[in-house]
Amino acid sequence: MALYGGIEAGGTTFVCGVGTGPDDLRAVTEFATTTPEETLGRAIAFLKEESIGEPLAAVGVACFGPVDLNPRSPTFGSITSTPKQGWANTDVRGRLAQALGVPVGFDTDVNGAALGEHRWGAAQDVATFIYLTVGTGIGGGGLVGGVPMHGLVHPEMGHLRVPHDRVRDPFKGICPFHGDCLEGLAAGPALEARWGQRAEALPVDHPAWVLEAEYLALGVTNLILALSPERVILGGGVMQQEQLYPLIRQRVQELLAGYLEAPAVLDEIERYIVPPELGGRAGVLGAIALAEMTE
Amino acid sequence: MALYGGIEAGGTTFVCGVGTGPDDLRAVTEFATTTPEETLGRAIAFLKEESIGEPLAAVGVACFGPVDLNPRSPTFGSITSTPKQGWANTDVRGRLAQALGVPVGFDTDVNGAALGEHRWGAAQDVATFIYLTVGTGIGGGGLVGGVPMHGLVHPEMGHLRVPHDRVRDPFKGICPFHGDCLEGLAAGPALEARWGQRAEALPVDHPAWVLEAEYLALGVTNLILALSPERVILGGGVMQQEQLYPLIRQRVQELLAGYLEAPAVLDEIERYIVPPELGGRAGVLGAIALAEMTE
Repeated sequence: MALYGGIEAGGTTFVCGVGTGPDDLRAVTEFATTTPEETLGRAIAFLKEESIGEPLAAVGVACFGPVDLNPRSPTFGSITSTPKQGWANTDVRGRLAQALGVPVGFDTDVNGAALGEHRWGAAQDVATFIYLTVGTGIGGGGLVGGVPMHGLVHPEMGHLRVPHDRVRDPFKGICPFHGDCLEGLAAGPALEARWGQRAEALPVDHPAWVLEAEYLALGVTNLILALSPERVILGGGVMQQEQLYPLIRQRVQELLAGYLEAPAVLDEIERYIVPPELGGRAGVLGAIALAEMTE
Repeated sequence: MALYGGIEAGGTTFVCGVGTGPDDLRAVTEFATTTPEETLGRAIAFLKEESIGEPLAAVGVACFGPVDLNPRSPTFGSITSTPKQGWANTDVRGRLAQALGVPVGFDTDVNGAALGEHRWGAAQDVATFIYLTVGTGIGGGGLVGGVPMHGLVHPEMGHLRVPHDRVRDPFKGICPFHGDCLEGLAAGPALEARWGQRAEALPVDHPAWVLEAEYLALGVTNLILALSPERVILGGGVMQQEQLYPLIRQRVQELLAGYLEAPAVLDEIERYIVPPELGGRAGVLGAIALAEMTE
């Protein structure tokens, strides 16, 4: 069985691992994202060290973005216009490929997470599904017919425009680009700004969660109508609030109003809108799934 | 060059053709959609008659819906729950395949139209794009990586929820399922209900068109964020109002607010949001493209 390296390249933390899957993750390390030189240097050193004696067949990088995923582009494999200091126009894939001398698979963080769930987690039995992560921001990706969603750039599902009833919720939203897009209304920092306390400090029965479920349900409903996914995985820090799942499922059914006559939506929504299954190592496992696909 | 049959199976009219492409459409006929027996019977008789001496390699059907596109389903190739009298649970694909004895490709009307544009029209150079048709209803489909969008059922882009400013537009929307979804606010009958006259009778400078462009731009923006298409084709009867294209392009740019740093959106939006190119025979040509893909 071939050995792979995986890098979950986050804007705050890098997680690197070597292994073949969830039951064989031989070594994992994580460190803060500092300069590209230092951070990529540490990742390269770790992967070299951990593959002495058994070379890596490939490496996968699930990367914070926006990233260039177009193989015909001169900047393919780069982070493009991030506000993250020092990282704009960084050729992440190229530097790793050059230093490690193996094929390097490269995709968005959320497409990586989706691939991991497809390989070992909550989406093993479906080929077309969405993975939405709700945390500091809202990101979305997924697979269509078993292939990670790319296109012109890559999906930016967090910035969907959703109905915003300003009588019910006068909060203006905090997205610096769009104000009250989905991320502006429903990411963790929006909860904190609206309610004056950190999301995780809000009680389970606080009205914040019904409103949060409303916006996430509107976003999920639009993604179901746009893409017809066979499953919707909702992950990220905000989704640690497990009371959100039943609230979102019910509102999605109400919003679709019986229009989609699919048993998955009408009768089995507990298995249609689900949490991820890979837990704390999802990011690095997704990167390993990406490596596996690249080899 | 193989000869194909194409059927544009609409809820009002069937258009049938035999040929190999836009420059070789040898025979075309159209007739009203009555009962399934009579209508499919006429289509079968036409295709048999027109292929005497040169047998068809395959037939494609671009069908009104909702339809079952899941090849593993017992009702694959059927129209499912349509309100169209007599047509619910009609096995369109099966009846044609049995009567004609050739492979029959089957997809939604809008996926068929998208395939035709990919083969011969406005999307020849891209693999991931959206086709939105705005007429009596609003339908959407497209290709992802060159493959028509299916999934759980198929996209239902017309029913996206978009922001609706009831101060600017107190009209409640006319979708029987959702009220003010995109179709409920912006399909042809919504224009007629809101303004008290048929859409085509409204002057080019009527405020109706700025409002119409607002809703269509919100829908297109959400589809761009959800799917990252390389192009967006807008067709259908309402889009005959050519003043809509520049209004929609400008609003999409404003709504994205520079967030997607893609030249296609920022600098070349006239080539990004475009009308279809196949004109009046687009439906039947899409069905022929579907046949070609099926053979």
